[in-house]
Amino acid sequence: MKKILVLHGSSREGGNTEQLTNLALEGIPHTSMYLREKHIKAIEDKRHAPEGFQPVDDDYDDIIHAVLEHDILIFSTPLYWYGMSGHMKDFVDRWSQSLRDKRFHFKEIMSKKQAHVIITGGDQPRIKGLPLIQQFQYIFSFMNMEFAGYIIGQGNQPGDIMNDRRAVEEARVFNERLKSS
Amino acid sequence: MKKILVLHGSSREGGNTEQLTNLALEGIPHTSMYLREKHIKAIEDKRHAPEGFQPVDDDYDDIIHAVLEHDILIFSTPLYWYGMSGHMKDFVDRWSQSLRDKRFHFKEIMSKKQAHVIITGGDQPRIKGLPLIQQFQYIFSFMNMEFAGYIIGQGNQPGDIMNDRRAVEEARVFNERLKSS
Amino acid sequence: MKKILVLHGSSREGGNTEQLTNLALEGIPHTSMYLREKHIKAIEDKRHAPEGFQPVDDDYDDIIHAVLEHDILIFSTPLYWYGMSGHMKDFVDRWSQSLRDKRFHFKEIMSKKQAHVIITGGDQPRIKGLPLIQQFQYIFSFMNMEFAGYIIGQGNQPGDIMNDRRAVEEARVFNERLKSS
Amino acid sequence: MKKILVLHGSSREGGNTEQLTNLALEGIPHTSMYLREKHIKAIEDKRHAPEGFQPVDDDYDDIIHAVLEHDILIFSTPLYWYGMSGHMKDFVDRWSQSLRDKRFHFKEIMSKKQAHVIITGGDQPRIKGLPLIQQFQYIFSFMNMEFAGYIIGQGNQPGDIMNDRRAVEEARVFNERLKSS
Repeated sequence: MKKILVLHGSSREGGNTEQLTNLALEGIPHTSMYLREKHIKAIEDKRHAPEGFQPVDDDYDDIIHAVLEHDILIFSTPLYWYGMSGHMKDFVDRWSQSLRDKRFHFKEIMSKKQAHVIITGGDQPRIKGLPLIQQFQYIFSFMNMEFAGYIIGQGNQPGDIMNDRRAVEEARVFNERLKSS
Repeated sequence: MKKILVLHGSSREGGNTEQLTNLALEGIPHTSMYLREKHIKAIEDKRHAPEGFQPVDDDYDDIIHAVLEHDILIFSTPLYWYGMSGHMKDFVDRWSQSLRDKRFHFKEIMSKKQAHVIITGGDQPRIKGLPLIQQFQYIFSFMNMEFAGYIIGQGNQPGDIMNDRRAVEEARVFNERLKSS
Repeated sequence: MKKILVLHGSSREGGNTEQLTNLALEGIPHTSMYLREKHIKAIEDKRHAPEGFQPVDDDYDDIIHAVLEHDILIFSTPLYWYGMSGHMKDFVDRWSQSLRDKRFHFKEIMSKKQAHVIITGGDQPRIKGLPLIQQFQYIFSFMNMEFAGYIIGQGNQPGDIMNDRRAVEEARVFNERLKSS
Repeated sequence: MKKILVLHGSSREGGNTEQLTNLALEGIPHTSMYLREKHIKAIEDKRHAPEGFQPVDDDYDDIIHAVLEHDILIFSTPLYWYGMSGHMKDFVDRWSQSLRDKRFHFKEIMSKKQAHVIITGGDQPRIKGLPLIQQFQYIFSFMNMEFAGYIIGQGNQPGDIMNDRRAVEEARVFNERLKSS
């Protein structure tokens, strides 16, 4: 059975994005990682430094090990300023280091994974969230990962998301599809 | 005379983005802030918490005070995974806190500023950087800031940017326009 | 009760886009116009000509009169080369003439209408259809029309669309929302 | 020497787009085709019809023969409603027929060509023209054509384009690059 990992990018516990994500995964075994609970340093670009990238003392490795061990990755993030949260961006930026990490074949392993994106936002997310979808598309395409789909929900106040009929239905379809696969 | 602040998002000193930005500002007085030298914590969303946002012990305030005192803001960032760097994203995310900071009228002051964007990237940046331009457009539009323009340069190896004739010319036009304004 | 007009942009009768649109409108009274059955000349830009725009002998006026008399407009088009069909583009281009037509206050009347978009495509439409969604956003925004939502379906062979669970569910949610409004 | 074909999409003679395009091609031998002078019927999708596509009595073949005989294609179009003109869209839509035309190997021949895009618009074209750039990217990518670059100019009133310093400089750089290649 395929192993599912959810990377939660929100800085707030139990927010709209998490609620929508939980709905999408109801009854489906999965692992959750909350990036806000992890210490992830912003990348220091050492691609062109003579010494190259050096080990970094933070929680990035824990997360990336979990990522490597799962088959399906769900990137769940609220729209922060029309992009993924800084927590998630700091995490993704570090992939540049993993690409050069000799302990594992990062790109090769990642290319076998399937990615999904779940985002929510308060300001016309189905329009203003599209650049983020396009950015994810470029990210996954670079890594040769399958971009299997995305859900965009609308909500501002806590719990709003449950009133977004369309997002709720999409989460339900997502759930059924995942269960039957 | 208008005061210019450059917010450098790169994690690497003297990289292509900085070179292009320096070219664009040659002979023009300006302040530079290097986000990589600052300690900026990722936002903790307290919009819906009873206690609201609390003071954060890091360098964000220093930067935002500089921002508020300048008229023209230049967001200079390499494309990291087809977005702004995590350093810059962590900074921008914190604006959500400033919007609720009673010490100043953040949105009102910001709405009088003019924004420019300078980005460079190695993988078809003039196509794959467009979602980031659209994201900046939504950011500035939300803040009622003028999005005066952007330059996209191509470069991978250190110094490459100087071979991007089009970006170099755009930096020159930008420079002349800024000097004559 | 609100009057609904569907503008069908497909050049093929009964294709996937029409099927999805019919599903979305099941049991809801509406008017359908098939642009392929109309003769619509491409615009001749006369904005700067001394004589201005002149009457054009084709079916455009019939369509625009129908448009003006309805409250909800549904732009239904297959993705042709990642954009709306030429039939629909020729129609929309002519709005530039209507904006200067003294017989009616085109922009003012249009600003009271609500717009929906339904598109289907065969090549990753949920990603590659996003520029078209953004284009429609700019179009409706220019006209001060409400962009109430969009559905993107996937299908290549005739009838494929019925296997796109997500699109079918979205059409159903759309249908219920329209019925209850 | 590489043969250059410009496909002019404007419906107006000598407008801003044409001026910018002429500037970009100053002193460089090339062929110009003005789509507004041609009769191009909108496509009738016969992919799934038993009889398939049938010969169409219009000027499309003349244009496509010219296209096939040139090495560099320049798509020059004003932004009409944030997209290419209907004239150009009707032309591109017909490629679906050429893909199935047994007289030539359309996709194979096209894949050897280099494409450039020149657009001008009056309403923030450097932002609101980006979906069109992304659409062209998908079009050329589908055809395996090289998307060598684009110029976006701003202009509303006739002749405005000459005041767009940035576009004028980009046209100059484009010109030099083409001359030296």
